[in-house]
Amino acid sequence: MPMPKGHQAFPRSEYMRRLSAVKVEMERREIDVLVVTTSGNITYLSGCTTKSGDIPTGLIVSLQQEEPTFITRRQDAPAAVHQMFIDGSRVVGYPEALIANPDQDGWDALIELLQQKSLAGGGIGLETKFLPGQVVEKFKRKAPKATIVDFSDVVTWIRSVKSDLEIALMRECAAIADAATIRAKEVIRPGVREADAVAEIIGTLIRGANGKPGTDVASFFLCASPRTSTCHIRWAEDVFRQGSQINLEVGGLRHGYVSALMRTFSIGKPSDRLRRLHDGEVAGMEAALAVVKPGATCQDVAEAFNTELRKHGFEKDSRCGYSIGIEWTEPTASLKVGDLTILQPNMTFHLMLGNWIDEDFGYVLSETFRVTEAGAETFSALPREIFEI
Amino acid sequence: MPMPKGHQAFPRSEYMRRLSAVKVEMERREIDVLVVTTSGNITYLSGCTTKSGDIPTGLIVSLQQEEPTFITRRQDAPAAVHQMFIDGSRVVGYPEALIANPDQDGWDALIELLQQKSLAGGGIGLETKFLPGQVVEKFKRKAPKATIVDFSDVVTWIRSVKSDLEIALMRECAAIADAATIRAKEVIRPGVREADAVAEIIGTLIRGANGKPGTDVASFFLCASPRTSTCHIRWAEDVFRQGSQINLEVGGLRHGYVSALMRTFSIGKPSDRLRRLHDGEVAGMEAALAVVKPGATCQDVAEAFNTELRKHGFEKDSRCGYSIGIEWTEPTASLKVGDLTILQPNMTFHLMLGNWIDEDFGYVLSETFRVTEAGAETFSALPREIFEI
Repeated sequence: MPMPKGHQAFPRSEYMRRLSAVKVEMERREIDVLVVTTSGNITYLSGCTTKSGDIPTGLIVSLQQEEPTFITRRQDAPAAVHQMFIDGSRVVGYPEALIANPDQDGWDALIELLQQKSLAGGGIGLETKFLPGQVVEKFKRKAPKATIVDFSDVVTWIRSVKSDLEIALMRECAAIADAATIRAKEVIRPGVREADAVAEIIGTLIRGANGKPGTDVASFFLCASPRTSTCHIRWAEDVFRQGSQINLEVGGLRHGYVSALMRTFSIGKPSDRLRRLHDGEVAGMEAALAVVKPGATCQDVAEAFNTELRKHGFEKDSRCGYSIGIEWTEPTASLKVGDLTILQPNMTFHLMLGNWIDEDFGYVLSETFRVTEAGAETFSALPREIFEI
Repeated sequence: MPMPKGHQAFPRSEYMRRLSAVKVEMERREIDVLVVTTSGNITYLSGCTTKSGDIPTGLIVSLQQEEPTFITRRQDAPAAVHQMFIDGSRVVGYPEALIANPDQDGWDALIELLQQKSLAGGGIGLETKFLPGQVVEKFKRKAPKATIVDFSDVVTWIRSVKSDLEIALMRECAAIADAATIRAKEVIRPGVREADAVAEIIGTLIRGANGKPGTDVASFFLCASPRTSTCHIRWAEDVFRQGSQINLEVGGLRHGYVSALMRTFSIGKPSDRLRRLHDGEVAGMEAALAVVKPGATCQDVAEAFNTELRKHGFEKDSRCGYSIGIEWTEPTASLKVGDLTILQPNMTFHLMLGNWIDEDFGYVLSETFRVTEAGAETFSALPREIFEI
């Protein structure tokens, strides 16, 4: 019995739209074939969210063919057939003997497949920025007639403007992030182990909200006193204490898409310093959201935030946010001074106002939002408060 | 108040031992300085397990200095001070303005730091196999007097033989993996959503066992009917059914170290085919473990398994396992035909007998074990059964 198709997060027409946009860019760059190797872009163009680890895989997009071809290790091919919108016959599994093989690997199989399909003689687009140098060298050596053209970030930029279907999915993700944050408020208590609270919070991220489960665990950070100046500690082997501050960053995740949310918790009354910073950050967030509209730039948003925060006597040295969608951060537009990307409807950002000020003091607040026809729509329904416990 | 040191998984002497082994290899390769950039190797040589995402970071090991220096983005520096065994003054934070900056990035800051310390004029070891080509080019361009020497996998091979302290930590991880697998047997029921069961299983991986919590969520896969031929699907938006088979792969994780475990579950009686495959795999596992001892090769172990499985009428096309430790798979020794790595005491492997036979049938069974002075010690206490529900 062949592998059946699984639940499809999007209809075929959505993928065809995405592929058309990619093919326009391929024509502009005069390439016949594109080999997509970054996992977020493979998800975007196929629906596949399985995790094959750090092994060679490639989604091959050809101008001559409507659907792409996917190549991966043999044992991961059934998962691709199950999850991808493409016909199962277009999934190619290369032999398992190529795994952990010092002489040849999956890249050799991929290049041979291009040769077989007569796709290795013209322009080949590669996401070279993310490929080890040795892999690009192998393409040049084994396909000497081809011209390698850098296609890094091109698909990622196309991803930056979402369809209404993608926005609907990100709203579902946001409801999950909200539920997890509400759960955090219930389970963070003095004397409770951080791990026990996290088990409940992550459990909520998986169970989901409104009957829609999370389909993976996104990046997760709980940085409690005395670690409030850190941003990327999962959690610690420690208990919460009376007076502890807790900085929480969660993401609801469905079918590869994420909505992120950060809130600060305080067991007992927040300190004056924390309260003052919070007031400045909330005012800054409101100022930033107020300038969001099509035609404004990323820089405009950052400057609105920075100006307002300074009025409250604080600075933030890191960027105010970034494009978000598949796999959390999209390495394209940033909400920072100097980024002149023009906002368009249905661009989505994590307005990330985490502010790690010095070694014993940091604070977090964020919203995931989309650019609307006239302004900004934030996805979370939670208040912009310090959650007091 | 400066950032205090956090819980240290290992004493300083353990890190000094690891660094000494690395420095011997640096001398052999005639390099004065090594820039460690793969996160597993940074964890190994420093204790840091924070997740900074895909940004430039480097642990700089110099023959002239006892402790390494670590460079990362400014906002991640406090976490490194907290978690690493090295003196806080040896953690350097580069400006946040280098994040998402098209003109220069953290690699520029790292190379400048090498110049400042007069470390950019001789041999520089880089883990080039895992670095984008552009990054290696930047080293060559900005440190033209240096000789770049490939150090890929060198630290990883040193990691492959564990200390008794590492083994003790991996035993703690194994107890967590066991607890999660037992929890799976309690919560997998017909009509239950996969996500609801997974929330409980992952919750157990986080709460841990014997008072020792998990410190992160390792890779996790639950592949249930009709997806038993897949190996890397997190879980599906589906419910378990009477007659479902469930293939579960979990990892207990503490301070970067993992012990992995796979077991197959059946709601109702297993099919004859599943029972026969299981019998062959268990016999193959016993045969494989029986040949493990110092001096035997990885190939010996694989051949013992393959020979026994064939007697039962089955084949497995993928390797039988791989070195495991920090961050799950270590890309060094594989239990496969052709791998002549000689087993040494305290090497640790995931004897991974997952067998995805065709598009509607796959099965999993595994053990994480260490090589002892005379044989093999498996870490799990669970029976090698199909768990019937």
